Amino acid sequence: MEAKPVIKVAAVCGSLRKASFNRGLILSAIEICNESIRGMEVEFVDISGLPFINPDLENGSEFPEAVEEFRRKILEADCFLFASPEYNYSIPAPLKNALDWGSRPPNVWADKAAAIVSAAGGSGGSRVQFHLRQVGVFLNIHFINKPELYIFAHKPPKKFDSDGNLIHDETREYLKKILESLHSFAGRLGP
Amino acid sequence: MEAKPVIKVAAVCGSLRKASFNRGLILSAIEICNESIRGMEVEFVDISGLPFINPDLENGSEFPEAVEEFRRKILEADCFLFASPEYNYSIPAPLKNALDWGSRPPNVWADKAAAIVSAAGGSGGSRVQFHLRQVGVFLNIHFINKPELYIFAHKPPKKFDSDGNLIHDETREYLKKILESLHSFAGRLGP
Amino acid sequence: MEAKPVIKVAAVCGSLRKASFNRGLILSAIEICNESIRGMEVEFVDISGLPFINPDLENGSEFPEAVEEFRRKILEADCFLFASPEYNYSIPAPLKNALDWGSRPPNVWADKAAAIVSAAGGSGGSRVQFHLRQVGVFLNIHFINKPELYIFAHKPPKKFDSDGNLIHDETREYLKKILESLHSFAGRLGP
Amino acid sequence: MEAKPVIKVAAVCGSLRKASFNRGLILSAIEICNESIRGMEVEFVDISGLPFINPDLENGSEFPEAVEEFRRKILEADCFLFASPEYNYSIPAPLKNALDWGSRPPNVWADKAAAIVSAAGGSGGSRVQFHLRQVGVFLNIHFINKPELYIFAHKPPKKFDSDGNLIHDETREYLKKILESLHSFAGRLGP
Repeated sequence: MEAKPVIKVAAVCGSLRKASFNRGLILSAIEICNESIRGMEVEFVDISGLPFINPDLENGSEFPEAVEEFRRKILEADCFLFASPEYNYSIPAPLKNALDWGSRPPNVWADKAAAIVSAAGGSGGSRVQFHLRQVGVFLNIHFINKPELYIFAHKPPKKFDSDGNLIHDETREYLKKILESLHSFAGRLGP
Repeated sequence: MEAKPVIKVAAVCGSLRKASFNRGLILSAIEICNESIRGMEVEFVDISGLPFINPDLENGSEFPEAVEEFRRKILEADCFLFASPEYNYSIPAPLKNALDWGSRPPNVWADKAAAIVSAAGGSGGSRVQFHLRQVGVFLNIHFINKPELYIFAHKPPKKFDSDGNLIHDETREYLKKILESLHSFAGRLGP
Repeated sequence: MEAKPVIKVAAVCGSLRKASFNRGLILSAIEICNESIRGMEVEFVDISGLPFINPDLENGSEFPEAVEEFRRKILEADCFLFASPEYNYSIPAPLKNALDWGSRPPNVWADKAAAIVSAAGGSGGSRVQFHLRQVGVFLNIHFINKPELYIFAHKPPKKFDSDGNLIHDETREYLKKILESLHSFAGRLGP
Repeated sequence: MEAKPVIKVAAVCGSLRKASFNRGLILSAIEICNESIRGMEVEFVDISGLPFINPDLENGSEFPEAVEEFRRKILEADCFLFASPEYNYSIPAPLKNALDWGSRPPNVWADKAAAIVSAAGGSGGSRVQFHLRQVGVFLNIHFINKPELYIFAHKPPKKFDSDGNLIHDETREYLKKILESLHSFAGRLGP
């Protein structure tokens, strides 16, 4: 009897802050999968070492080493989890940079499922998520539609501690629903 | 008799490529202003030396040196010209990064006029321009609406030489109209 | 001594509901201007009688009667106030229809200032406002950037009575700031 | 041996013009499916008889008759084809109206695949498609990402005759690819 293969989720965080709330969401997602979603595991993919996107840095089909490593991780993943703040009503530059590097031919994001969550000020990230979805059309990413998770990071009750760890049970439950939806959608789309 | 003060335009390019078409547009804008738009001058503001946006790099109200210098130039400008390719249906990471650094309190973009031009594949940049306009609402930038300039960079006739210089007269005429419209709009908004 | 001319604001509501919260905002804006903003008056422009946009209904430069009347009112206004709910993350059809009719050549919206407010579920209308702003680029409408007003219509405290009247002082104060900003921006743009 | 069930596509056109190019695209899609895509059939769903969206017209869970009939057709479809011009950089009012009526609880668009094509001026509809995709997130529609079809309606070569019929073979081939992609994506998502 063969075991059902595990769905591998590459998780990318939009903020480079040490105590980032959105990295806290990813750490929480890793735990949730380990504890209660069988058949799916989340890996945090660090993007802080990437250079700025610049086609001049490419040598034929060769990329700078940090880019190569990043692209390999994205390529090996079955689907994606994006956790990002909203910077100026759009995608933070570090996340856009990772998306841009991954898009260089051959596009390593192509034809995979993804989910977005955002802990942000203002309206909880309702704008960054739609810019990211538009980027996803070109990258050929299939985003889940439901549920949507917009976390009002600066409104009570307190959802994160000072290190950025998620400490709010209700938000954790919601995040679990996102992961279950991603699991199910990736399953429907198939390999 | 007092001379009318010159309107200073800070020009930011979305691409870091050496032979960038969009930098070619800025160089052309500098020439056009020198030659035929009295009372306006364009300065190219380099963004390639900025670190990635990260609030951890701020020390109170102090920014890294390259950021301080960039912010000073933006603050001293009267209005802005953005020339950018479209990366994955949105703003290239280097440009988003410059926008993000400028937004840190106090926001140095605030309450000034701006124009966008784009040389891009696909639909000539029709998507990057609207993402940039949405960012501009938060940054409180007042974009001109008309005319709009979307340059189909890869369709004939050839518009740029291999160094990225604009060599197409019709596009140059259009760019001049953009600059005149920016001049007029900045004048209407006043200081 | 000549009196400064009054700035005429045409106010358009995105909802056709009798007890619309957004019409309540417009009625409140009319009162606020009468009471405390000298030199500006708001008129509610009804859009419920317009037919669906269809170029086949045009006869040369002649429009159906209800369209002609609507276009005349928009043309005579100095600037605009849009108050709209968010339907399915975008502009409600009746408002889009009014925008579309006004755009038919000659575009009657052109080169005027405007403000948007929204009472809506979810994130208070953060998505409808940006779709409307994108439409405004083609229509050549100059939107104020600040302040922004997103009213969470269904969250406490109660902001509207069952007839749709605004009964929340804090929101009324915010609406007043919007009108003052529109007044000032229309003044800067000039005639 | 059981026959594989046919995938039923409800096709909605954004324009009410008699000689609409986009209706021409739908008529062409009907032919293409009949001739060469086994297991999929396209039905044109007329939206010209719908009243303007207005919750006051609902009586409990009962809708006006034209709305009931429209909603039934959408509910019975397996997936959707949207063919629309771009009005003022966004969705034409008649199409937005149909989307809005279908969204009223229970949402009849939910959890189905869809494709968008646009024959439009300017950039071929690159803006209307993204507004429609954003609406689709709330409606829980799963759009195909690739290929994308933006038809520059007013640039040579001529693609439509004066009745709106598609007469351009290359565009027809492209449309066929869209339908095949929709077929495949609907199959992957499953029932």
